[in-house]
Amino acid sequence: MSKLLQDAVAEFAKLPGVGRRTALRLAMHLLKMDSQEVEQMMQTINRYRQQIRHCQRCNNLSDTDLCPICSNPERDHSTICVVEQVGDLMSIENTRQYRGMYHVLGGVISPMQGVGPSDLKIDLLVDKIKQGGIKEVILAISTSVEGETTLFYIMNRLKQYPEVRVTTIARGIGFGDELEYVDELTITHAMMNRREVE
Amino acid sequence: MSKLLQDAVAEFAKLPGVGRRTALRLAMHLLKMDSQEVEQMMQTINRYRQQIRHCQRCNNLSDTDLCPICSNPERDHSTICVVEQVGDLMSIENTRQYRGMYHVLGGVISPMQGVGPSDLKIDLLVDKIKQGGIKEVILAISTSVEGETTLFYIMNRLKQYPEVRVTTIARGIGFGDELEYVDELTITHAMMNRREVE
Repeated sequence: MSKLLQDAVAEFAKLPGVGRRTALRLAMHLLKMDSQEVEQMMQTINRYRQQIRHCQRCNNLSDTDLCPICSNPERDHSTICVVEQVGDLMSIENTRQYRGMYHVLGGVISPMQGVGPSDLKIDLLVDKIKQGGIKEVILAISTSVEGETTLFYIMNRLKQYPEVRVTTIARGIGFGDELEYVDELTITHAMMNRREVE
Repeated sequence: MSKLLQDAVAEFAKLPGVGRRTALRLAMHLLKMDSQEVEQMMQTINRYRQQIRHCQRCNNLSDTDLCPICSNPERDHSTICVVEQVGDLMSIENTRQYRGMYHVLGGVISPMQGVGPSDLKIDLLVDKIKQGGIKEVILAISTSVEGETTLFYIMNRLKQYPEVRVTTIARGIGFGDELEYVDELTITHAMMNRREVE
């Protein structure tokens, strides 16, 4: 096998979710693209890597020191939705229903993987709340063991600010999910948190 | 959403099999890699793109004018295995059982996609056979309609060389496949081409 191809495949295979077979397909595809396209791709990715930064207020990815959400005066600055990662923020933004602020932790507490509270942007969140003006903190953190640990840690830190309402997003049966295939814990929660039919 | 991130995601999403979600994951991963790693990845991919070429004899990808297989005097130069693409060649090489030559067509005849015989390296194959010394041509082409068309086209072109044995690889039930789930055509072929138990 060609050394050049071998090296390219090895590089692609380092990416998450890319096995040797996919890496090979990507390498083959690259040969079909014209040089201009490849050049543009490389430049875009390089520019992204070198110029992107984290919002100083909420830790969202941003082209500027303050992200477009934090610098938008028309959004509700008294509500903060805490998420694990930028992808979660995007999912919520895609609903176009939420008009408040965000706070990106950058992960969850995971002693197994050596991630402690100080590795996450929790102090930055507490500082923001300390400055006042925050009415509600919505914890939109995953229900994994690590997620729950992180949730309880943050709830404890926020106890010193009783004026701030702390909520978590609702757990229940997703739209389109078939009850038959939903796990027991979710069903239990969905039953407990049942609501009056409106 | 950050423009830099948006652009990077759009570039990744141009790759085959990469949707927006995967593109986003790749973009996020890139931020976790250190600059040296990213630099090395970019350089390797650039070098691959710019320096790789096709073997002048068999159309395999190669670092040099003749690929390592064609320039290996210890392999059997009288047998040519014809495959659609470089990935197929690699799969056969991975078995470490075949010691002959290859010929990479670069696709299959597909009028729907505007691919005619002249778009494939069929003339190069016929020229090679014309020069003599070839005893067998193994057609390892897929069983799709396009594959069969290509197979018949090549078989017709090779009729003028009756001294060359033309074969196709065996169709049958794969090892580990469960008969229950195998399609009828494959079972029919497997039954027709049954062999004595040795």
